[in-house]
Amino acid sequence: MPSRMRLEIGEQPEALRRTIGSLTPRIGELEKLAARTRQVLFIARGSSDNAAVYGRYLVESHTGRLATLAAPSIATTYRRRIDLDGVLAVAISQSGRTEEIVETLDWAKACGARTVAVTNGQGSPLAESADVALLTEAGEELAVPATKTYTTQLAALSVLGAGLGADVDLADLDRVPDEIERLIEATEASESLALIVEELSKVQGVVVSARGLAFGTALEVALKLKEACYLHAMGLSYADLLHGPIAVVDETTPALVLGVEGSPVLEGTAALAARVVGAGARAYGIGGGSELAGASSLALPGPGLPEWTAPLALVVPGQLLVEKLARRLGINPDVPRGLNKVTQTGA
Amino acid sequence: MPSRMRLEIGEQPEALRRTIGSLTPRIGELEKLAARTRQVLFIARGSSDNAAVYGRYLVESHTGRLATLAAPSIATTYRRRIDLDGVLAVAISQSGRTEEIVETLDWAKACGARTVAVTNGQGSPLAESADVALLTEAGEELAVPATKTYTTQLAALSVLGAGLGADVDLADLDRVPDEIERLIEATEASESLALIVEELSKVQGVVVSARGLAFGTALEVALKLKEACYLHAMGLSYADLLHGPIAVVDETTPALVLGVEGSPVLEGTAALAARVVGAGARAYGIGGGSELAGASSLALPGPGLPEWTAPLALVVPGQLLVEKLARRLGINPDVPRGLNKVTQTGA
Repeated sequence: MPSRMRLEIGEQPEALRRTIGSLTPRIGELEKLAARTRQVLFIARGSSDNAAVYGRYLVESHTGRLATLAAPSIATTYRRRIDLDGVLAVAISQSGRTEEIVETLDWAKACGARTVAVTNGQGSPLAESADVALLTEAGEELAVPATKTYTTQLAALSVLGAGLGADVDLADLDRVPDEIERLIEATEASESLALIVEELSKVQGVVVSARGLAFGTALEVALKLKEACYLHAMGLSYADLLHGPIAVVDETTPALVLGVEGSPVLEGTAALAARVVGAGARAYGIGGGSELAGASSLALPGPGLPEWTAPLALVVPGQLLVEKLARRLGINPDVPRGLNKVTQTGA
Repeated sequence: MPSRMRLEIGEQPEALRRTIGSLTPRIGELEKLAARTRQVLFIARGSSDNAAVYGRYLVESHTGRLATLAAPSIATTYRRRIDLDGVLAVAISQSGRTEEIVETLDWAKACGARTVAVTNGQGSPLAESADVALLTEAGEELAVPATKTYTTQLAALSVLGAGLGADVDLADLDRVPDEIERLIEATEASESLALIVEELSKVQGVVVSARGLAFGTALEVALKLKEACYLHAMGLSYADLLHGPIAVVDETTPALVLGVEGSPVLEGTAALAARVVGAGARAYGIGGGSELAGASSLALPGPGLPEWTAPLALVVPGQLLVEKLARRLGINPDVPRGLNKVTQTGA
């Protein structure tokens, strides 16, 4: 019987069709809200935080607005007011019920920010308190590792980017669901998948790296490898990796490197894979076409999408890898030890 | 013969006395620059990036200004202009010669930001191009893992915080050098140090965690464990840790937990250590007084300093632990594999 996680990976094309269909008509509303702000501050934790990293690069690289991530403890523990006049605060939470995130968005509003909620929780406190709520249409997600709630968050952030004036073609977004369908088939048909799973089942640690718009995807795959495979997965941008942590890569610590064809950061990403292989370690590529595959020891296919929407699909081979590796390790990917679906991080 | 790294750890009190002495008279200059800005954007990589995380929490929790970290690739690879009017861009680089950081600060200036450089490189391109250069007086650092250049960066950021109007008592800063002297002695006299080194020498991975003002210290200790001990060290805020990665902690994956006495986040930090121990794993505390030590399996002492200056000294027991562990593992901590002192991350 397939795991719940594997089923939910397969539900992503439909979840994305619903989400894209329901959110693109909201762009006008976002434009109005955005007109009164000059920058974006994301508020999130866990997988939602990795989605925020995508949102951050999308907004900065395509709208010319500053976009950064909030430190919730300033709101919830230090309880310090900050000047957020002109700021669009965007809180992202699957459930919309994580108290820390709800409290931080309320704090942002009290500090002068306009507010947006991105959540799968219709009627949740987060959706209720925001100026604009972008509801993802992922349906119920039962496996603890987020898959369809994560990619539908990315879709909502793509729409947010469009509302902030991104210089992109919205038609690219409509191509994502079909591309994910194709990519699931292509990944499962790839001989490399079983080989990478087998090699990763024999190591304790792995570095996961990417840069720019795909960096959040690397963080998300690293998070999944930690939570569902108990692997020491270190998610690092390729620039940060070269500032010290590259020392950790060796014959028993491979690197998983993610890239996007046509991206200005692909050249550096492929060079990183080549450097890892040159150091006697294994490099597994995901995406990045023949340039990254050619520099890697083994490679999985990536989406044929422009860089700004590629992260919605690029994570999918990573999700499939995580699910297969968890089962290979005798772990039920649906219920990793020590975790609940709604995480409370207060105190 | 002691390692170069151990010698440089011992040089920190003197380096900090010089740096604090030369930078505190510059507060008026910073006040003038700050008056024309409303928020701070840090630009850094590696250890300097961990210093920026301290700066970020200090500025937000004590001055009420928004403070966040830049994504250099937006400047250097995507080459996108962003509206940085009203932003104080603060670039941090030990050498002042890392091209990516110099280029990103120049970009910030072109985007409308006022600029500050924090560097140990007098006459470096970074120092030359900033509106205000805060030179750290660390002296020459020869070991690849940054120690005294890191803590003097924190001192410069403390002074920056004061220039931005932090509600703190500057006299706390003058107490730091003596406190580090005491802490080096106390750490090396602690029976726990050798025990923790021995236990860490038998594992491949470790989680390093803290929250708020001490979070950057956790990231810095994690970076050092990766670069000088080749350990799979995962630096995570305690809130992020509870969102998934806590699954990775087990009998062969301990946690290193850092805290500060009197901090509003200490309660949660001690609760995290207790949860790790409750899960059958080992938790090593650094700082946080009897509350954190009592919740940990083994503990190292922390500084007797208020939270805003504690990070300048809290990293020191971590530095000593890293240096001792590297030697225990047969690694020369001064020259980890694959690393150079000035890191270029272009392309």
